[in-house]
Amino acid sequence: MACLALSFMATAAAAQTRPRARDLGVPFDGTPGSLNAITDVKGVEVGHTTLISGEGALEVGVGPVRTGVTAILPRGKESEAAVFAAWFTLNGNGEMTGTTWVQDSGFLDGPVMITNTHSVGVVHDAVTAWKVKRGKPDMEGYWWSLPVVAETWDGYLNDINGFHVKPEHAFHALERARPGAVEEGNVGGGTGMICNEFKGGIGTSSRVLSVKEGGYAVGVLVQCNYGDREQLRIAGVAVGREIPEHTVWQRDQGSIIAVVATDAPLIPTQLKRVARRVSLGLGRVGSYAGNGSGDIFIAFSTANPGATGPEAVHAFSMLSNEKINSIFLATVQATEEAVINAMVAAETMTGVDNRTVIALPHERLREVLKKYNRLVQ
Amino acid sequence: MACLALSFMATAAAAQTRPRARDLGVPFDGTPGSLNAITDVKGVEVGHTTLISGEGALEVGVGPVRTGVTAILPRGKESEAAVFAAWFTLNGNGEMTGTTWVQDSGFLDGPVMITNTHSVGVVHDAVTAWKVKRGKPDMEGYWWSLPVVAETWDGYLNDINGFHVKPEHAFHALERARPGAVEEGNVGGGTGMICNEFKGGIGTSSRVLSVKEGGYAVGVLVQCNYGDREQLRIAGVAVGREIPEHTVWQRDQGSIIAVVATDAPLIPTQLKRVARRVSLGLGRVGSYAGNGSGDIFIAFSTANPGATGPEAVHAFSMLSNEKINSIFLATVQATEEAVINAMVAAETMTGVDNRTVIALPHERLREVLKKYNRLVQ
Amino acid sequence: MACLALSFMATAAAAQTRPRARDLGVPFDGTPGSLNAITDVKGVEVGHTTLISGEGALEVGVGPVRTGVTAILPRGKESEAAVFAAWFTLNGNGEMTGTTWVQDSGFLDGPVMITNTHSVGVVHDAVTAWKVKRGKPDMEGYWWSLPVVAETWDGYLNDINGFHVKPEHAFHALERARPGAVEEGNVGGGTGMICNEFKGGIGTSSRVLSVKEGGYAVGVLVQCNYGDREQLRIAGVAVGREIPEHTVWQRDQGSIIAVVATDAPLIPTQLKRVARRVSLGLGRVGSYAGNGSGDIFIAFSTANPGATGPEAVHAFSMLSNEKINSIFLATVQATEEAVINAMVAAETMTGVDNRTVIALPHERLREVLKKYNRLVQ
Amino acid sequence: MACLALSFMATAAAAQTRPRARDLGVPFDGTPGSLNAITDVKGVEVGHTTLISGEGALEVGVGPVRTGVTAILPRGKESEAAVFAAWFTLNGNGEMTGTTWVQDSGFLDGPVMITNTHSVGVVHDAVTAWKVKRGKPDMEGYWWSLPVVAETWDGYLNDINGFHVKPEHAFHALERARPGAVEEGNVGGGTGMICNEFKGGIGTSSRVLSVKEGGYAVGVLVQCNYGDREQLRIAGVAVGREIPEHTVWQRDQGSIIAVVATDAPLIPTQLKRVARRVSLGLGRVGSYAGNGSGDIFIAFSTANPGATGPEAVHAFSMLSNEKINSIFLATVQATEEAVINAMVAAETMTGVDNRTVIALPHERLREVLKKYNRLVQ
Repeated sequence: MACLALSFMATAAAAQTRPRARDLGVPFDGTPGSLNAITDVKGVEVGHTTLISGEGALEVGVGPVRTGVTAILPRGKESEAAVFAAWFTLNGNGEMTGTTWVQDSGFLDGPVMITNTHSVGVVHDAVTAWKVKRGKPDMEGYWWSLPVVAETWDGYLNDINGFHVKPEHAFHALERARPGAVEEGNVGGGTGMICNEFKGGIGTSSRVLSVKEGGYAVGVLVQCNYGDREQLRIAGVAVGREIPEHTVWQRDQGSIIAVVATDAPLIPTQLKRVARRVSLGLGRVGSYAGNGSGDIFIAFSTANPGATGPEAVHAFSMLSNEKINSIFLATVQATEEAVINAMVAAETMTGVDNRTVIALPHERLREVLKKYNRLVQ
Repeated sequence: MACLALSFMATAAAAQTRPRARDLGVPFDGTPGSLNAITDVKGVEVGHTTLISGEGALEVGVGPVRTGVTAILPRGKESEAAVFAAWFTLNGNGEMTGTTWVQDSGFLDGPVMITNTHSVGVVHDAVTAWKVKRGKPDMEGYWWSLPVVAETWDGYLNDINGFHVKPEHAFHALERARPGAVEEGNVGGGTGMICNEFKGGIGTSSRVLSVKEGGYAVGVLVQCNYGDREQLRIAGVAVGREIPEHTVWQRDQGSIIAVVATDAPLIPTQLKRVARRVSLGLGRVGSYAGNGSGDIFIAFSTANPGATGPEAVHAFSMLSNEKINSIFLATVQATEEAVINAMVAAETMTGVDNRTVIALPHERLREVLKKYNRLVQ
Repeated sequence: MACLALSFMATAAAAQTRPRARDLGVPFDGTPGSLNAITDVKGVEVGHTTLISGEGALEVGVGPVRTGVTAILPRGKESEAAVFAAWFTLNGNGEMTGTTWVQDSGFLDGPVMITNTHSVGVVHDAVTAWKVKRGKPDMEGYWWSLPVVAETWDGYLNDINGFHVKPEHAFHALERARPGAVEEGNVGGGTGMICNEFKGGIGTSSRVLSVKEGGYAVGVLVQCNYGDREQLRIAGVAVGREIPEHTVWQRDQGSIIAVVATDAPLIPTQLKRVARRVSLGLGRVGSYAGNGSGDIFIAFSTANPGATGPEAVHAFSMLSNEKINSIFLATVQATEEAVINAMVAAETMTGVDNRTVIALPHERLREVLKKYNRLVQ
Repeated sequence: MACLALSFMATAAAAQTRPRARDLGVPFDGTPGSLNAITDVKGVEVGHTTLISGEGALEVGVGPVRTGVTAILPRGKESEAAVFAAWFTLNGNGEMTGTTWVQDSGFLDGPVMITNTHSVGVVHDAVTAWKVKRGKPDMEGYWWSLPVVAETWDGYLNDINGFHVKPEHAFHALERARPGAVEEGNVGGGTGMICNEFKGGIGTSSRVLSVKEGGYAVGVLVQCNYGDREQLRIAGVAVGREIPEHTVWQRDQGSIIAVVATDAPLIPTQLKRVARRVSLGLGRVGSYAGNGSGDIFIAFSTANPGATGPEAVHAFSMLSNEKINSIFLATVQATEEAVINAMVAAETMTGVDNRTVIALPHERLREVLKKYNRLVQ
């Protein structure tokens, strides 16, 4: 446990020196924000707890441990105002708690947490405890919480049945959340994840619309753990077939969680449509959303901060449906890039029973893109 | 055909001298508006075309004809501004066209039309033609219409396969639409309908909230064609079992379309919840939503008239979710009363092959309510 | 903790000497099974862990404790075969985990657990641990679990933020699960619940169809924590208005979870429709599904036990849609009775800060029913 | 009208000499059936009515006419047995009638018709009339029809407000339906459609699984009318940017209807998932599902022909969810190819007001693919 604690305290500055997909010459459409991250949407904060310890043969409850927790706070730690939100399931073999109330209320009230499949419960209760500690019961003593916690499965590399995520790891991710650059790859909930049979994990990207289109930002963060090598497409090129070495299971396996943030004034009806567009971004990179996949997406808008005050009637603004296309396209584009960023940032990892999942080899990727005249020089 | 035309020109002032459920001493909760009708929501207009002609043996294409069309215009004929809207299906054995766009846009753009099952198409195209005639293509020549047309089946009394509803009947219902008292019973789309094995048809009711609750109006209009006698409950009393004579098919048959209007500033997410509450009103009157039933409901809000202007961003207002309970309860109550009103207003009708469906006998109803100490004296 | 342990070991035989709603003369339609419980569906097992300790002022983490866990196992502890299932949300202010996969797979694979709002997480992970212990990873080491855990809020009587439910309490409910009579009222997840401002909790009922209708059983179990006194209707009578003493909050508050079991061979499409019918049962007893309510229902069929074997293609049977009405009606009826049974079985309870919620007074209930000529003598 | 009649009688053998996308060297994954069409699923029949007449300035009601109707019969004209089915909306700005009953019954009972936006009604009623003529009312005289009719908007080239589609055109498409090769491009409902700002229309493709995967066929037919040139990707290449001439509106406009057929024994729950995969195929070709798009998909299975007989309980078979991935991938692949086939088959068309929409130039396409090393030689 000391080892774990050490590990999760020390992960702060990792991975950031790795190039991102654009740095390698992968072509993408659209204009990213200055961070090319979900945090380009003002107010959004992200925090990770990364748990890496042990090696060798699996000993349930001991390790190896390759997992973690990622927290996304729509308005940061200082604001408790809910955001308009909606969700969508492309394939349901996964979990995102709290969604019935997101659906019916139209609001996301609290953070989005992402972890491994068998740690959903502990993170769920930890968020409740965190909110209890921060909040105060209202005057009638009536108080409850329906946290949003999502997951993907990391049991290939991680001792998932050892239940290594503890409440303090969820607290840590929440407390560490901040604006600015977002760590990608083998961090947070994404630590032990596998994407298209390369090492996966956390990836993010953003788009900023032109002033004429409203100047809004759209950011996407994914915990990327889906796909088979054969289907992977980068910039439209079937890269996976050209790098066939060291596959994992030669079939679609795993899941992807996507969080879409925007500062465009969208109402829940519109955010539902935005969440659905994540599917199209996944289509671009070759996903067919296999049976075992939990492809679950949530979208929120940081506009309209006054939407949940104590008044009986709230004033809001709403983007015209006629102007929403740029938001849709930005969502598709940022999803595509976030997935590639996750693979580019992740590093080769060895976990349970000395299984190794290789990182997407950067030079090989460049060679393949060049072969198809797609490399940005 | 001359006969039909005559008939539908002449139906204007019928049925209104019949008592309504309250007049008979049926107890209801809540405070209705002055009309106790969907038109208590300001701006809402309703028009009927009633087609009654012929008698005796069925001759397909000739008659007997017992059918019609009802038009509900959310903002009346003069305004083309769309309204926030949402829909819900309790049981799907029916049709309401135009709902995918209601769902995704959050708006209802045009009237809600209700007719018989086999006249959905003609009314659909008639609404398009009516909008084409009134509207003007935009500057790019791009123009389309996705009308909302719903139905229930009247083939027990009506020559439904004779396709007697014509475009002019839809136009007539639209042009006749007006505010004020709404005809109930054997009128409009409800002309040949059967409800709980009594003669059914159109029914309506409303509730007005207290000033403290916002003073909003909620109105419901139903085309009532569902149910079996055995299950009917009025004011909680199994009235149908006490009036077992002249049943029709001794099982649940048919459908119910409900339209809920309110001037409360609700967004589509909230209107979806309102539409779902119609189910609870139907539960109160004994429905179990049989397999053959098309129980489809649409709800709209006349607030926020500016929500579809040409601006990129619209300002609007939204009732807090914390204040929505009164709207929910009003919807349940008005649905319950609208169903009973439909049966109370309808009169015994003989149609195809001399089949007769009896009206709910008013005095018998009073006796039964009295027996259970539920009659309002 | 010793005290808690003692409590939950000792609750086995409680409450069963209390009369049920029928015993008091409340009239219900339809024919119940021999147990008038969800366990009339062969194979279904139910287990409760009841946690009651402490009294007086709230001390978070200490008590008073008035909570628990209820486990429903569709095929009992001995079978791991999944059941066809579907779910429905009448109002989403609550949680039922695992539903995206129920929806997309069409199967419920494991128990349904019900507890308090802030114990969803611990029970979620406990079910995973329980399945890990019982199961064995498949040959590829690939193994995951998406437990179904639902909740209602008991913080009026229970120290909900003390997080008193522990993994062993979930294990205990699972291990104690058995066929036969089901304890109702202040037991299991229902221990601290409030229903229509009377003491609520667990209630159950069943219906058995005639041989002609297939002879199927339909059972419903509810954790009943919704409603305001004013709206409560029993046998169609507004009983709550006639027993206005000792209300709790004079408004709708809380939630209801319903589990519907049947041995009729229904496919998920049909079970979705069955789950939706719970709404109509709630309509009969007066619910309007208030904003604060988490009204979430799951329905499963124990038929077709071979539906999840290793074969590529499975043989199944399916009830014709034309024959499903009796199942729908049975669901409505059993829901209605389960809700009333929960209130009839529950006993007056004093909890946090000496708040007391009174039981539905049996004699008063009989008097009111008699007044409206509804008492079965 | 004589002219129209002539036109629709004469269109039978057109377009078939045009190469298809594979013939041009466009690379696709997977193995198509012998026809590479939806009719590779045994039993499926397709018929078109193509209406082309007039030229020059728009005269509403006269022309120019560039429209039609396409009929897809799941089991051909000879069988009336319903098929298991489900539907999905990627973006709802369109119409597909009959879907509430598809959703709730799990069955598609009759053909799928596709036409232009303003002819939905006439085709709807025509299908009803066609079924009335063919069928016979049951013994109780109870009979109704809820046709499935979908549309896309052809008003750029066609006098859409002239309502040129008549009942006989729908009958003609139904009667002409047959197995075998399917005409593509400017035929049937697709006659006047525009896809990615090239001339669009009807396209189809299929995949056949290996014997090990069950040997099932999956076929897709699209009426393709969506997209902007800028986003179009063929074989992963942004072809539209390399052929920027003669664009239409420089933005996403229009819609796409997709029909997926398979002989794999899928239940409605599974078919819903299949329908959703069409989104991923559209993602591959660059769609972002713009606000104005009606992207609506229906999937059905021709297996289990006995699922709607008169028995109370039906025996059927179901593919294991564990084996469904090949069906998902085939759906994505066939969707991708069907869209490209629509554009490759369509020919340059001039319509209303002498507007011309160019066909995708075959040689230019080959050059662009070659530039990106994607041309199959």
